[in-house]
Amino acid sequence: MKRFSPYTDLAIEIAENIMTEATEIEGVEVGHEECDLSGTTVTNVRITDEKGAEAMGKPIGSYITLESEHIKENDIDAHEKIISILSKYIKYLCPDKERPTVLVIGLGNRDVTPDSLGPKVVGKILVTRHIKNTVPEDINNAVSSVAAFAPGVMGITGIETLEIVKGVTERVKPDIVIAIDALAARKVSRINATIQLSNTGVAPGAGIGNKRKTINEQTLGAPVIAIGVPTVVDAATMANDAIDRMLETMKNGASKGSQFYNMLSELADEEKYGLIKEVLEPYSENMFVTPKEVDAVMENLVNIISNSINIAVHPGITQEDINRYKF
Amino acid sequence: MKRFSPYTDLAIEIAENIMTEATEIEGVEVGHEECDLSGTTVTNVRITDEKGAEAMGKPIGSYITLESEHIKENDIDAHEKIISILSKYIKYLCPDKERPTVLVIGLGNRDVTPDSLGPKVVGKILVTRHIKNTVPEDINNAVSSVAAFAPGVMGITGIETLEIVKGVTERVKPDIVIAIDALAARKVSRINATIQLSNTGVAPGAGIGNKRKTINEQTLGAPVIAIGVPTVVDAATMANDAIDRMLETMKNGASKGSQFYNMLSELADEEKYGLIKEVLEPYSENMFVTPKEVDAVMENLVNIISNSINIAVHPGITQEDINRYKF
Amino acid sequence: MKRFSPYTDLAIEIAENIMTEATEIEGVEVGHEECDLSGTTVTNVRITDEKGAEAMGKPIGSYITLESEHIKENDIDAHEKIISILSKYIKYLCPDKERPTVLVIGLGNRDVTPDSLGPKVVGKILVTRHIKNTVPEDINNAVSSVAAFAPGVMGITGIETLEIVKGVTERVKPDIVIAIDALAARKVSRINATIQLSNTGVAPGAGIGNKRKTINEQTLGAPVIAIGVPTVVDAATMANDAIDRMLETMKNGASKGSQFYNMLSELADEEKYGLIKEVLEPYSENMFVTPKEVDAVMENLVNIISNSINIAVHPGITQEDINRYKF
Amino acid sequence: MKRFSPYTDLAIEIAENIMTEATEIEGVEVGHEECDLSGTTVTNVRITDEKGAEAMGKPIGSYITLESEHIKENDIDAHEKIISILSKYIKYLCPDKERPTVLVIGLGNRDVTPDSLGPKVVGKILVTRHIKNTVPEDINNAVSSVAAFAPGVMGITGIETLEIVKGVTERVKPDIVIAIDALAARKVSRINATIQLSNTGVAPGAGIGNKRKTINEQTLGAPVIAIGVPTVVDAATMANDAIDRMLETMKNGASKGSQFYNMLSELADEEKYGLIKEVLEPYSENMFVTPKEVDAVMENLVNIISNSINIAVHPGITQEDINRYKF
Repeated sequence: MKRFSPYTDLAIEIAENIMTEATEIEGVEVGHEECDLSGTTVTNVRITDEKGAEAMGKPIGSYITLESEHIKENDIDAHEKIISILSKYIKYLCPDKERPTVLVIGLGNRDVTPDSLGPKVVGKILVTRHIKNTVPEDINNAVSSVAAFAPGVMGITGIETLEIVKGVTERVKPDIVIAIDALAARKVSRINATIQLSNTGVAPGAGIGNKRKTINEQTLGAPVIAIGVPTVVDAATMANDAIDRMLETMKNGASKGSQFYNMLSELADEEKYGLIKEVLEPYSENMFVTPKEVDAVMENLVNIISNSINIAVHPGITQEDINRYKF
Repeated sequence: MKRFSPYTDLAIEIAENIMTEATEIEGVEVGHEECDLSGTTVTNVRITDEKGAEAMGKPIGSYITLESEHIKENDIDAHEKIISILSKYIKYLCPDKERPTVLVIGLGNRDVTPDSLGPKVVGKILVTRHIKNTVPEDINNAVSSVAAFAPGVMGITGIETLEIVKGVTERVKPDIVIAIDALAARKVSRINATIQLSNTGVAPGAGIGNKRKTINEQTLGAPVIAIGVPTVVDAATMANDAIDRMLETMKNGASKGSQFYNMLSELADEEKYGLIKEVLEPYSENMFVTPKEVDAVMENLVNIISNSINIAVHPGITQEDINRYKF
Repeated sequence: MKRFSPYTDLAIEIAENIMTEATEIEGVEVGHEECDLSGTTVTNVRITDEKGAEAMGKPIGSYITLESEHIKENDIDAHEKIISILSKYIKYLCPDKERPTVLVIGLGNRDVTPDSLGPKVVGKILVTRHIKNTVPEDINNAVSSVAAFAPGVMGITGIETLEIVKGVTERVKPDIVIAIDALAARKVSRINATIQLSNTGVAPGAGIGNKRKTINEQTLGAPVIAIGVPTVVDAATMANDAIDRMLETMKNGASKGSQFYNMLSELADEEKYGLIKEVLEPYSENMFVTPKEVDAVMENLVNIISNSINIAVHPGITQEDINRYKF
Repeated sequence: MKRFSPYTDLAIEIAENIMTEATEIEGVEVGHEECDLSGTTVTNVRITDEKGAEAMGKPIGSYITLESEHIKENDIDAHEKIISILSKYIKYLCPDKERPTVLVIGLGNRDVTPDSLGPKVVGKILVTRHIKNTVPEDINNAVSSVAAFAPGVMGITGIETLEIVKGVTERVKPDIVIAIDALAARKVSRINATIQLSNTGVAPGAGIGNKRKTINEQTLGAPVIAIGVPTVVDAATMANDAIDRMLETMKNGASKGSQFYNMLSELADEEKYGLIKEVLEPYSENMFVTPKEVDAVMENLVNIISNSINIAVHPGITQEDINRYKF
């Protein structure tokens, strides 16, 4: 029987979901890193074989999830620490080359605030490809050849995003593509509090809109690091979760063995799915849940992600430069 | 017993809520107008005495609700018809004077898209107060003395909105104040599909943020027409509705008289409220549900409301002028 | 001797400049059309051979210039007439095919208001390439296959614009590319009052920023229609013109044959150029002249150009559809 | 004879202008401070009596001008130093009271980028008036009672700005009003490179648009500190300057005593004014000169001015807090 599963892009949510039933999944390794910042953790989910891939519904590869409440807050010190952690992991996923050629791709629709993360990050990347080898040698040695680019969304361009990205990648010939996209989470608490890195590619429009053809090493011909941040929860997903938690709470409240408890327990998944579907009808797919202060939080995210990339890809750029100059 | 009632600003939603239980409410008159536009209705809820006011939880006065799916659509013909209906009702609530002095107040935070309705409408009002009596006589006769003004929100100004509005009203001395605000609805289906007019004032920030001191004839010293549009549903309200509808659906599915049915029926309101509260915990008050295309829809709303006001208050401005010139 | 010539992108300004000296230029044909709209003219400059190309400093081809004061005004009727004229000329430059495959390219920097014309037009193009052949036959027959795309500017992307455009063009394989760009004019009076069409390509960044590699049939492999609007005058160009006109006025004021007159006349171009250069020193290349209401005027331009293209390229889209629906 | 004098809001430009003719002006004291930041100076022009006021065409009072090329640059260290200098001078002009009640007024039109300085600064002021006395005592002691407010422009509101500001001031009853406005400079080199403080009030719309009634202690009933930044040069002013400098250059080039030199010298001011006027005709008052990167520079200015105010008015807010938290 097909389990009703509300949509999520986050490997960590899938893992959590499955792990309520089993403590270990074959072909999946989960590691944790405590960070030097209160309330901030890094979880590394590695899918190592096909079994793990099937269990998770995600391709083989690394899924690194940074979780921190400080992303939403206007605490610049905390942001600095997050940048330092994030840039380290981006570097870890990058090819081992001192000055790689990098193409940063900002996915999403810049005119829909929670989907504008990618295009806005592009605007803050220190691009150098057009001046590389025309600047003094010491500067030239301090920077990689970096280009950045926002392909837009298919609803505006009429062109499959993968096609545009491929056209540009073929000309830039990067050692690594870094693609940034806004994602959908399942839990409201994750909104703008989680950054996911992976080396398995990204399907544009996963968060807001329809999923498009996946951008990954196979389709693009260059390795891809995907950086995703859940900026919304689909309204239907949220309603579903509310109902699920309600049923759970009712069951917990009923005395075990009572008829009411048994009846709730006996509600087969199938029936529950039908109920939920009926209830959710009015929530069209184009409704989503966002925080009131979404604009301010997006600015924080853009700053954190663009500067993490700037530090990770340019050998001569440090946190100090980031503090001193705005890119 | 206090009934758990998710928040709504719309008189029509309160009336619907109560009327599921009774077909008539004392002190409340409900009238309907069919409009010359498919899928568009006007409902006029008049609270005529204290009994009605108590039943509705709203002050005595007129609450006119225009509902139309066409607000969200990019159908300019339909928008014209809505403008024609709306301007008629604004005129109906205005004092009976050929060229009244009008002060339009745009409430809300212009930097939070679904709350920016009021400030944006201000930008499209044909203001004349500063040129009145300095223009040729025929033009002067065609227009009223109109001023427009966005007071901002208390979180940005540090000043209670009512104070600012009072300060300006005392200087402009209008015959009528028209206040525009974004509201919160209870049902997702009402978002950007409903326009409410009333002559009983408005509490700024009702939709998004905390309720502030009410702007009405008593507090301001001038009669107030409030124009409100629900642009969001609070995330907690939506979750509550999902749960309510689920319980209802479960009850409908259980055979009447069965034990399961009885148990669900016997869930006292009190218990239900407790359950819902527990379930809703994670949905902070600062999360809300909006449609993906919120920017485009806001533009439609601004156009409809500002032009309805322009036609209603200026004796010489017609639909034709609106079509020809942009204000 | 090299003549000091302040920069202009407009063929009509070059022609006017040369024609003050000669009434006819070999290899250049100039035609005029009076339009059914007051104060609106269309000038067709055709450079027919290499001699004309050399005299004009522009490649062989058609340069159609629509001039109208109504672009700046908020007169919707006038805009309709301009759309009707402009769409006719776009069609005239398009390949003779009922439903051509079209790629619209919006050049320029969307974050610099007077340079944002191209990217904003892209957002209002009725794109169909992604749904072509999946819609009912009558709709399918009413539309061409149209895609639209904003490549950004080299300062942000690090990639030569021509490269990006080529990468996308190779994948879309259009019958025609329509490229929109903001231009620099020489005369302040032309700002936002002139639309230039040509079939000879465009060098991105000509108006604001540095000129980049030309996008034309030769470099792209597909014919190119360029639509350009002067939205700024370079500050140095404006200062130069003020000085030129001042010298002219002084000469006109001096009695002919007087010593003062003779001296002014004898100011060789070389000397004048030196003087002007000295005077202009403080006006850096990054200063330009724009009208105060530049945002509102850009909106008019975006509406006029996007709708002219929509009507020109889709066989089933008419002015009436444009009035009824917003794209 | 009335001297043709292109418009400037800057006391320092007026003083420079007069001082080319005389080294001292009666009733005007000019002091300089070298700053601990390369290329940055502070000039303090004090008009001490009516004679000075007449000579300068400005009221009696202090005019402090900070000039620095670093405002335009993205150098965060330099911005910190400028904030430290500026906050010191704001404090110097503030009443001598530990926790004054402050009303910050952001003048200008937020929808015209170079005029949006004031409204944008308002959004970054740490307002406290609405929470004062409701927070823990140590926080309460660290902050003054601060409110902030953007009255809009008369073209949008239909209300004289002074009226709105008066209405709000009467209710807030501040010890000091700090009004921020964008100004017009005479020299292109001053654009976004100069910040002028004064205690003599401000006439809104001086920079862009028509001058309105002055906001000062006399009209408002509370002392006023005006903070102004020249963000534009009027196009006609710039053209005039180009011509003036050209005539000067021609005179310098002509051998003294030659007829050409004498003729140029003999061009009476009156004639010159006529000539200039004729030449300037096409440059309407609504054209102005701005730098290309105006949006980015405005962001720097907003950051510098809002934080200088935050530090100057709140006894417990320091540069360190500014670095740590975003307001």
